[in-house]
Amino acid sequence: MLDRIVIDDVRPRTPTGRYPAKAVLAEPLTVTATIFKEGHDMLAARVCWRPCDSKQWGEAAMTAVNQGLDLWASTIEPTQLGLHEIVIEAWYDEWSTIKHKLKAKLDAGQEVDVELEEAARAVERRAQDTGAPQKKHLLATAQALRDDVTTAAERYAGIVGPTMDALMAGPLRPEYVTRSEPHTVWVDRSRAVFGAWYELFPRSYGGLRGVIDQLPRIADMGFDILYLTPIHPTGTTARKGRNNTPQAMPGDVGSVYAIGGPEGGHTDIHPDLGDFDDFAALVDAVHRHGMELALDNALQCSPDHPWVHEHPEWFHHRPDGSIAYAENPPKKYQDIYPLNFWPELDEDRQALWEACRDIFLFWIDKGVKVFRVDNPHTKPMAFWAWCIAEVQAEHPDVIFLSEAFTRPPVMAKLAEVGFTQSYTYFTWRTAKIELEEYTEEVARSYKADFMRPNFWPNTHDILSGPLRNGPVTAFKARFVLAATLVPSYGIYSGYELCENEPMSDANEDYMHSEKYEIKHRDFDSAASIAPFITLVNTIRNRHPALQRLSNIKFHRVDNDQLLVYSKVADDDVVLVVVNIDPLNAQAGVLYLDLAELGMPWDQPYEAYDELTGQSFHWQGASPYVRVNPWQQPAHILHLRRFEV
Amino acid sequence: MLDRIVIDDVRPRTPTGRYPAKAVLAEPLTVTATIFKEGHDMLAARVCWRPCDSKQWGEAAMTAVNQGLDLWASTIEPTQLGLHEIVIEAWYDEWSTIKHKLKAKLDAGQEVDVELEEAARAVERRAQDTGAPQKKHLLATAQALRDDVTTAAERYAGIVGPTMDALMAGPLRPEYVTRSEPHTVWVDRSRAVFGAWYELFPRSYGGLRGVIDQLPRIADMGFDILYLTPIHPTGTTARKGRNNTPQAMPGDVGSVYAIGGPEGGHTDIHPDLGDFDDFAALVDAVHRHGMELALDNALQCSPDHPWVHEHPEWFHHRPDGSIAYAENPPKKYQDIYPLNFWPELDEDRQALWEACRDIFLFWIDKGVKVFRVDNPHTKPMAFWAWCIAEVQAEHPDVIFLSEAFTRPPVMAKLAEVGFTQSYTYFTWRTAKIELEEYTEEVARSYKADFMRPNFWPNTHDILSGPLRNGPVTAFKARFVLAATLVPSYGIYSGYELCENEPMSDANEDYMHSEKYEIKHRDFDSAASIAPFITLVNTIRNRHPALQRLSNIKFHRVDNDQLLVYSKVADDDVVLVVVNIDPLNAQAGVLYLDLAELGMPWDQPYEAYDELTGQSFHWQGASPYVRVNPWQQPAHILHLRRFEV
Repeated sequence: MLDRIVIDDVRPRTPTGRYPAKAVLAEPLTVTATIFKEGHDMLAARVCWRPCDSKQWGEAAMTAVNQGLDLWASTIEPTQLGLHEIVIEAWYDEWSTIKHKLKAKLDAGQEVDVELEEAARAVERRAQDTGAPQKKHLLATAQALRDDVTTAAERYAGIVGPTMDALMAGPLRPEYVTRSEPHTVWVDRSRAVFGAWYELFPRSYGGLRGVIDQLPRIADMGFDILYLTPIHPTGTTARKGRNNTPQAMPGDVGSVYAIGGPEGGHTDIHPDLGDFDDFAALVDAVHRHGMELALDNALQCSPDHPWVHEHPEWFHHRPDGSIAYAENPPKKYQDIYPLNFWPELDEDRQALWEACRDIFLFWIDKGVKVFRVDNPHTKPMAFWAWCIAEVQAEHPDVIFLSEAFTRPPVMAKLAEVGFTQSYTYFTWRTAKIELEEYTEEVARSYKADFMRPNFWPNTHDILSGPLRNGPVTAFKARFVLAATLVPSYGIYSGYELCENEPMSDANEDYMHSEKYEIKHRDFDSAASIAPFITLVNTIRNRHPALQRLSNIKFHRVDNDQLLVYSKVADDDVVLVVVNIDPLNAQAGVLYLDLAELGMPWDQPYEAYDELTGQSFHWQGASPYVRVNPWQQPAHILHLRRFEV
Repeated sequence: MLDRIVIDDVRPRTPTGRYPAKAVLAEPLTVTATIFKEGHDMLAARVCWRPCDSKQWGEAAMTAVNQGLDLWASTIEPTQLGLHEIVIEAWYDEWSTIKHKLKAKLDAGQEVDVELEEAARAVERRAQDTGAPQKKHLLATAQALRDDVTTAAERYAGIVGPTMDALMAGPLRPEYVTRSEPHTVWVDRSRAVFGAWYELFPRSYGGLRGVIDQLPRIADMGFDILYLTPIHPTGTTARKGRNNTPQAMPGDVGSVYAIGGPEGGHTDIHPDLGDFDDFAALVDAVHRHGMELALDNALQCSPDHPWVHEHPEWFHHRPDGSIAYAENPPKKYQDIYPLNFWPELDEDRQALWEACRDIFLFWIDKGVKVFRVDNPHTKPMAFWAWCIAEVQAEHPDVIFLSEAFTRPPVMAKLAEVGFTQSYTYFTWRTAKIELEEYTEEVARSYKADFMRPNFWPNTHDILSGPLRNGPVTAFKARFVLAATLVPSYGIYSGYELCENEPMSDANEDYMHSEKYEIKHRDFDSAASIAPFITLVNTIRNRHPALQRLSNIKFHRVDNDQLLVYSKVADDDVVLVVVNIDPLNAQAGVLYLDLAELGMPWDQPYEAYDELTGQSFHWQGASPYVRVNPWQQPAHILHLRRFEV
């Protein structure tokens, strides 16, 4: 079948097109394509889409948004979760072409008898496919087009207007229609894009019941997702000591990532943390506090994991008969056995992959819908493509966060094959140009079609940049950046206390890392920045502009310590000015694109600082700003026109 | 089948992957891909390629050229014309992984007994698939690896080196190999990339025999391709007069693009120009002068074309029974009937398309291998995809130049579906930033995988920018730009005489356009820049660096009237400094990337001006340059190290 019309570059899409792009339920999804054909004929196009489990297609007309680049667009709004199919249809718009020719010739005073006859025939053709009473109207219109008692201009006037536009809409002949290849889009719930995460180690709080006691504090700060590090039994073989020493001392609790012991594996709870009743109580309490629970999924085993004995075929075996522990020679991780995702026999592979999938299904059954996946880049892409599709086919509301800090193509591929969200390099992007370029890459490049960034200023593994021995001002500034550059962000507990002591100069670990010991914290400390965190989360929840990803735009300011960006959603306009110098006040003159911001160029408008409640009256594109980090690290400005 | 390894972004490729990318016979073709798998295992990869008419695969090992981006590359060199298939194979490189582990552990003083046994088993496995005497060597090596009389370091030393590397090369187990989707590449002859074109209207020279008389002059200037505007009979109905007036006067010759008359159509020669014997003589003479002939293919008909009567079904019919002439209402082109590439019946479409293809085959049979295709964007993409593939399947040495001056996606698509070369926007790119950005786009972006620019400072339709009423300096500068920014360029005859009179301020046509009348020129004029053209073409032929497309790099100079770029091919280094101000001398200090240019930073090197024969001794990255356009419009500098 030969395509009469070229339909290329359909977006959103993944780089290979083999996996679905991503969208969000009940949020506008802009579909674009490059559409053209030879010559001067006018075209029309539409997006046809359906949930893959439905035969009911929706349709939305496309318009040419950039004629010089043949770029067409339409905005649709998915109304159910899960996999959708999108097909673009384009056709030669014979009716518009006839009308255009008629008008151009009439305006130039040329003869149009033949064009009027063309129009009459087109109307008659449409009448054949149309039921009464529209048919009657069409046939009368055809007659009128041939009625040479009236002038040509009068006859043309009779086919202009919404009635005829509606009757003549759509292709006049089926052979004019060219269809694109089908494209797929996965529709997530909105929490997949917008959410504030808070991470903690349950054992530092006395277990699951102790975590329940923390919920009011965490919910009050405005967090949406409470993420727990692994809650499973852990091994004793080769257990690590405090500060990652090779030998555990009596009483040392070891790493929570050495999963599995005599008490069970990935579908069991460490007895010190509680039981399944406690877990159910926690899930319930989290929901009552308006949050969701996220579990940590680390597909690896301690030497004491039940699978080691039940399924030795799922591990790597060395020639001496031993099971291989994790190594990156000469480094050894004897407390961890990696799984062998490609055992010798295909049925072993299938059994292992199903067992791994079943871990997710098990916890979903216990009320968990969000998973933070540890080091997914150490497992095969083919496994994730299969596993996430299997889980989401049954549970399309499940969210997978990829904790891969690795090479950019690998991180992007994990997103392409199905991860809902991704950790990012934000943690190491500290200079202005780095923050601008990296945010552009993750929020506005082609990657945003399928990859959603989650910005973490710290994690339990990573204390970096200005936070290392850093002042409170650095913690506040990095927090504002994470929470306002992109809609999803998270912090690891202790951030509110500005915990800043690194393990060593050569290492990004925390001193006394919670991975290897139990921590006790005084969250009531006067030094806590919890009130600041609460305030920023309140602002995030109040402003739809801060809840979207690709609406960010950086603005110029002649000061390399000030980062200035706006986010706009419909009428909501937020402008953020962050001072990334934690020590000194910084000032500058902004260069704003007022049209982009919807602000007047010839009248004052208001810049209301949501952090301080101050209201500035600005006029023009170049207001002066000054940010003293010892007062506030940023202005989060709500821009609005004054009421007339 | 699950892929163990990710192989993405294989290049060169076309945007949709449905059409072949492009390469050149006997020139290096760099194939790249993003290749990775989970974890720390080492990988190996190779490019496998074959001409599609052969079962013989070539192979070339790939290397990781950017480990941080998982980018692998290999350079192959196609040895025959036509369609080729490329498949990338990647596998877990077990042998290198074992050796790497061994070395790392030995260096750290760790036990390696198990690793030595792993190595022995790998060697034994390879021995099974290997014939004697290699088998014997491998088995002895396995034995030595287990020989605990020797030290581990000695045993490791026994498997290091080229002998074992060769014996152990390639995947140890077939299930380790992942194959990419097949990609196709079309291999052209080198004239597809590198060539200087000269256009003329044969009727202005007394026909085909007259053109033969012009050949010494054109060949002496160094042109490679002589392109003739249409040589077919033309119509008299609605013939255009001089300067595109609607009414021809007696004696007016009309447009050569109103193809077809009583004497025949696209496969006939206008009787005023000569006959097929004259044509054969011209083809022969062109070849004897070391050039090739290019014909103009314009798939449209005058009302007097034989097809109008023989195949009325191939045209558009209006309701009044008339055949539709070309229109863009209110503009009318009554001397041209466009072909209807989608007639009602599919057999009519097929007959028309075959007739259009047969025009190419007819002239190929007469010795023509190069076609300049007029307005291909007014014919369907599906037609060109089919037609070019049909022609090139039989004649892979045929070159198609697309004369589409239209929207960028349409121009790129014509290249994607098969056109060998493309006219470009160069004609309208005159400011420094425009020239830099546009050249980057056509020579260095993804487009260069399949689209080859041909830069024309003028055409018979287009007199623009600084050439309009422009001085000789503008003609020289624009010529140097076209001839050195990219490897293919062309001029329309009269350029050497600096013909500069526009039709009007609102129009890019020439006054007294040769499209509508016969021109007589005095090529012996003292004002001719033919000697300058000859010199530049000589330099182009002497320097391989000027014969490639994607090797261009712009260098900084703090003067917006100076354009500075280098081209490097192996040891050949050319640096061009063009003054785009036709009136004033311009000077500046360059900022050269010496490493890119292969020049020393601590010693003098020579900048030999090929245009003047002057030799400059430069040292360092910031030489001073000055270009006085009234002497020469540019420096074309051959950079070379001094002999030690």
